[in-house]
Amino acid sequence: MTHLYSTEQYKTAFITYMEATIKAKEPANLYDPIAYMLRLGGKRIRPILTLMATDLFGGNASAAMDAALAVEMFHSFSLVHDDIMDAAPLRRGKPTVHEKWDANTGILSGDAMLLQAYQLFEGYSPATFKSLVKLFSKTALQVCEGQQYDMDFQQRNDVSLREYTTMIMYKTAVLLAAALKIGAIIAEANRKEADALYRFGENLGLAFQIQDDYLDAFGDMATFGKQIGGDILENKKTFLLLQAMTLASDDQVKALRHWYSIQPEDCTAKIEAVTTIFRESGAVQETQKQIVQYTRKAFEALDTIAVPDAKKEAFRMFGESLMARTV
Amino acid sequence: MTHLYSTEQYKTAFITYMEATIKAKEPANLYDPIAYMLRLGGKRIRPILTLMATDLFGGNASAAMDAALAVEMFHSFSLVHDDIMDAAPLRRGKPTVHEKWDANTGILSGDAMLLQAYQLFEGYSPATFKSLVKLFSKTALQVCEGQQYDMDFQQRNDVSLREYTTMIMYKTAVLLAAALKIGAIIAEANRKEADALYRFGENLGLAFQIQDDYLDAFGDMATFGKQIGGDILENKKTFLLLQAMTLASDDQVKALRHWYSIQPEDCTAKIEAVTTIFRESGAVQETQKQIVQYTRKAFEALDTIAVPDAKKEAFRMFGESLMARTV
Repeated sequence: MTHLYSTEQYKTAFITYMEATIKAKEPANLYDPIAYMLRLGGKRIRPILTLMATDLFGGNASAAMDAALAVEMFHSFSLVHDDIMDAAPLRRGKPTVHEKWDANTGILSGDAMLLQAYQLFEGYSPATFKSLVKLFSKTALQVCEGQQYDMDFQQRNDVSLREYTTMIMYKTAVLLAAALKIGAIIAEANRKEADALYRFGENLGLAFQIQDDYLDAFGDMATFGKQIGGDILENKKTFLLLQAMTLASDDQVKALRHWYSIQPEDCTAKIEAVTTIFRESGAVQETQKQIVQYTRKAFEALDTIAVPDAKKEAFRMFGESLMARTV
Repeated sequence: MTHLYSTEQYKTAFITYMEATIKAKEPANLYDPIAYMLRLGGKRIRPILTLMATDLFGGNASAAMDAALAVEMFHSFSLVHDDIMDAAPLRRGKPTVHEKWDANTGILSGDAMLLQAYQLFEGYSPATFKSLVKLFSKTALQVCEGQQYDMDFQQRNDVSLREYTTMIMYKTAVLLAAALKIGAIIAEANRKEADALYRFGENLGLAFQIQDDYLDAFGDMATFGKQIGGDILENKKTFLLLQAMTLASDDQVKALRHWYSIQPEDCTAKIEAVTTIFRESGAVQETQKQIVQYTRKAFEALDTIAVPDAKKEAFRMFGESLMARTV
């Protein structure tokens, strides 16, 4: 495999590899849900990033397959446990594990998935193994912390923009960053370059997540794919809301507090009122600025990596396609 | 530290070390339950075994403290998740994590505990780290499989004695065995000796677990500490029952099936009837024989280890004190 492969080709290669490793195993109630989750689909962004990163630094992407699968396994594990905690009935349009089986199966299969993720690193040499496992454990713990902050914040009314940013960083961005750095470690990139790629993933992940909050309120339903204003109707804390709380006048803050304490029958009026405050307080402009800044920071980190521009093109395209939803 | 320390001294040293590592950390809802679980007490058998094993092979027990804590952390993790699955309100006389907090906290704190267990191996050199983590992952996955079999068996009426033995091996014995082998690896014992110590733990663990089933029906309440006949009243599959099913006459099997399908008001009559069949079918004698055989196998494995007998004395005493409850 060379760096000339497209993300679609990485995805196909990854899924082929994954399918070859999925075996029916006993006890079936432990292992069937794992196969079910892995086959649920999704964009496979994280494993693709691992493979791309190995290629970027002149490594062999096929040597990164196990690590890519470990990253995907971890992601699946976190979805299974999060879905139990959020009592979510559906995941990618299909029943969640705790719905199809039960909560106990979700807990235990999730645990087994996490352990199998660790096992997938066992094919690497001791020094590489240790680097990979250390990064993996640190990242996984941050993801748990992010999920805990997310649950804590639902019960609090004094969440700061800074706290919220840490939460989305932990819950989403660090895993994208780690997926990339894992690929870099396998290619034996030097530490400075591996860290630069990590920062690319981290900042792009943050930009993406803030954009997600933005599009939920101001996106185009056709391209965003979700009901616009959903977060507002659910009284969810988002980057936009917390940004508005720091910029809004006393009257605007009062109005926001009112709208976020009720669930009116007239959805349109609430969405209209809240988005107007988001606009008039300057929160929309500031949020757009933040998205641009984090995206720029990501690309600046990429620029510092000393490989030919042609090799970095795939990452630039990936970043741009990820952020293309913005306007 | 030398091998002359008593298990009580190992325990004190371990708890001192553990207390020094427990720090209040944010998010509190994630980390407080971990500290709560670690401080819940218990005999600390597994970490003590790790420290003893390091000493046995001439290593420095203080170098094994992190690994011992990893083993205890893993054990705590499995208790937290098992308690959710079993809906257990109490653990060591205190509220379980999901009772004191909630199920979501139990799931997520448990996950974080497992990840922190892995992190505790990071102080070891890459080669040792890899050996330890491989053994740890394999063992942890077996414990999950054991828990799954245990839950599966509750729904089945055709569990064989062989399947049951595998279940208790995975659910209990392998962790004792791994705790010992981890200590041996840190002391850089050769593989043959480390494996012999593993077999010591595995067979002793099996003997202990079968004995636990035995004592639940035939023990002395004063020394066993639990209500005698509890497993019988709960219609629990135990080694004694499954052994009886293989040895009993058709009439005895029929009677057992009857008693295990009802929950009569008169507890004494049921316990009396069932224990009589256990005795008359030969299940009691055969079970006692199995306990003796697994214990003997454990000590035979210990005998093969080429260190002075005086150094092995602590393990012999440990094994004997563990099995002293028998008669």
